[in-house]
Amino acid sequence: MAAHPDITNDTFLRACRGLPVERVPVWFMRQAGRSLPEYRALRGKGAMLDTIARPDVATEITLQPVRRYGVDAAILYSDIVVPTHAIGFGIDIVPGIGPVAEQPFRETRDLDRLRPLNPETDTPYVLETVDNLVAELNVPLIAFAGAPFTVASYLIEGGPSRSHNLTKQLMHNNPSLWHALLDRLADLAITFISSQLDAGATAFQLFDSWAGVLTPNEYQHFVLPASQKIFSELHNKHADAPGIHFGVETTELLELLAKAGADVVGLDWRIHLDDARKRLGPHVAVQGNLDPATVLAPWPIVSEQATNVLNRNARQPGHVFNLGHGVLPESNPEMLEKIVHLVHEYKLTP
Amino acid sequence: MAAHPDITNDTFLRACRGLPVERVPVWFMRQAGRSLPEYRALRGKGAMLDTIARPDVATEITLQPVRRYGVDAAILYSDIVVPTHAIGFGIDIVPGIGPVAEQPFRETRDLDRLRPLNPETDTPYVLETVDNLVAELNVPLIAFAGAPFTVASYLIEGGPSRSHNLTKQLMHNNPSLWHALLDRLADLAITFISSQLDAGATAFQLFDSWAGVLTPNEYQHFVLPASQKIFSELHNKHADAPGIHFGVETTELLELLAKAGADVVGLDWRIHLDDARKRLGPHVAVQGNLDPATVLAPWPIVSEQATNVLNRNARQPGHVFNLGHGVLPESNPEMLEKIVHLVHEYKLTP
Repeated sequence: MAAHPDITNDTFLRACRGLPVERVPVWFMRQAGRSLPEYRALRGKGAMLDTIARPDVATEITLQPVRRYGVDAAILYSDIVVPTHAIGFGIDIVPGIGPVAEQPFRETRDLDRLRPLNPETDTPYVLETVDNLVAELNVPLIAFAGAPFTVASYLIEGGPSRSHNLTKQLMHNNPSLWHALLDRLADLAITFISSQLDAGATAFQLFDSWAGVLTPNEYQHFVLPASQKIFSELHNKHADAPGIHFGVETTELLELLAKAGADVVGLDWRIHLDDARKRLGPHVAVQGNLDPATVLAPWPIVSEQATNVLNRNARQPGHVFNLGHGVLPESNPEMLEKIVHLVHEYKLTP
Repeated sequence: MAAHPDITNDTFLRACRGLPVERVPVWFMRQAGRSLPEYRALRGKGAMLDTIARPDVATEITLQPVRRYGVDAAILYSDIVVPTHAIGFGIDIVPGIGPVAEQPFRETRDLDRLRPLNPETDTPYVLETVDNLVAELNVPLIAFAGAPFTVASYLIEGGPSRSHNLTKQLMHNNPSLWHALLDRLADLAITFISSQLDAGATAFQLFDSWAGVLTPNEYQHFVLPASQKIFSELHNKHADAPGIHFGVETTELLELLAKAGADVVGLDWRIHLDDARKRLGPHVAVQGNLDPATVLAPWPIVSEQATNVLNRNARQPGHVFNLGHGVLPESNPEMLEKIVHLVHEYKLTP
């Protein structure tokens, strides 16, 4: 693979490809965020989408955990609603709640609120941030987008939801509108990720965080085609950039997440890593899967559980260490620092 | 098995035992509840725990879905916090929120707030309700209690929680207090279920609704022993009463839920029923697993998905049809009626 010349540490990219590594690469979902005092100091009380739109601040926030922890990858500071917000659908991030759409997606004419994304004019700040980051980083930068199902669920529910009833109702009651919606969201994800890769990101993660509320049948018929389109087009355009696919509560969907075209499947903490690898087979890499809540425990427990994750991989290639979901805001950064150290010290040749 | 003489339809009990049946038995978690207009009319705006404490009303509420749907089992109208509320821990059900403990469980002296349950004086209304029901019903009555982990999570979090961080912290930071707490809650569940079985219930379901937030390791070390104690003691005292064990997001815990001593493992909708049966082996019955959100779809979809659940069981003994979680309040009762009909008409001899 043609890694960016400034990337002196490409362990993460090699692990994504199932190639040999000297040590297990590690990064943390939401490594840039409220668990870091330097993040809270920089962010202040401003709106998250405003912060994302300031390249100097977004660059610094993305760099903070790389500097502090020495992780093997950076992930663009962004949010899954950035593209739909940028094209004027009418969705915002409300502090303490999450993404909120005052006028949720309900009917065919709502499709008109989802025009194609033009990265140069709609999200120029993202391109500038990626530009800045690529100049600074010596580890790969991971591009970032929400997957069609999870983004659709916010547009349809109008906000966070536990059981996603309205989303499932639209899916079953109006499958043609559903597929049209997911297809538009797939195009948005393709354009958004592609623009980040063009600007110098060297891998991408597609977040389908809430896909785990679906039955395997529903996922296969109503979600898989749109996600497949994303991986297929991105692989055509950016053959060198490995793609990670992640969602929580997806233990019964792992094979389907891989079938979507993922090079790496992200695992939450609900499954033993070796059980997941058995289901996925030898040609798919895995990322995970320490429970983020475990990070709040005393170090002997954290150390034992992190080592357990590593041991379950049994020193096979194709493992990127991560948490099973994002870093919890109440996490102690020192604990994450110790985890990075533990993972890096883990001997791959016994 | 010595079924109660008034039970003219014991299909449910036979299915729980893996014995032959003429038709697949069916009932619905939360079949008595807000989806029924007759329930809303009877309940009015009173507090739920007050309604549970009125045997005439609780009896009628339990009977309503049996009359309307012709389901093969009744489940006591109750809540998982009834015993802890009755012994004065200080937990209540707040409308629109759920169980709330103003002074959550935090330290060793909080154990003093969990004295043993005396059913005759603490929950006499439950015994009276069961008495009433047994006189009325010709189908089995399912006794009901919350499992130690799920009850503990409400006591510790002080209310509903998504990630159960405080619960996991107590578990890891103070394992001896954790085990003492779960042991007390196991004793409460044993006494509470036992009193319902003594009064004439002929099966029981132990709800560990939120156990799926745990890693398999955590479940095994911190939860399994207490749940095992419950099934073991209840099986010793009430050898005839089959026990069902249920939680959502537990697809990786199914073998452990069975290991706790369950005769029947309840499945949520996230797993294909045949995949679950493969993991559980031939000696454990299953209950489930239509997605409650599917009930909100048009009948052709509901019918297709319900039939799919039945087909995946491939006419083997040991299947109780149910939803994968409780009936959603916005469900149309006519849809549930049609599901009961479909399940009962499903031919077991092709």
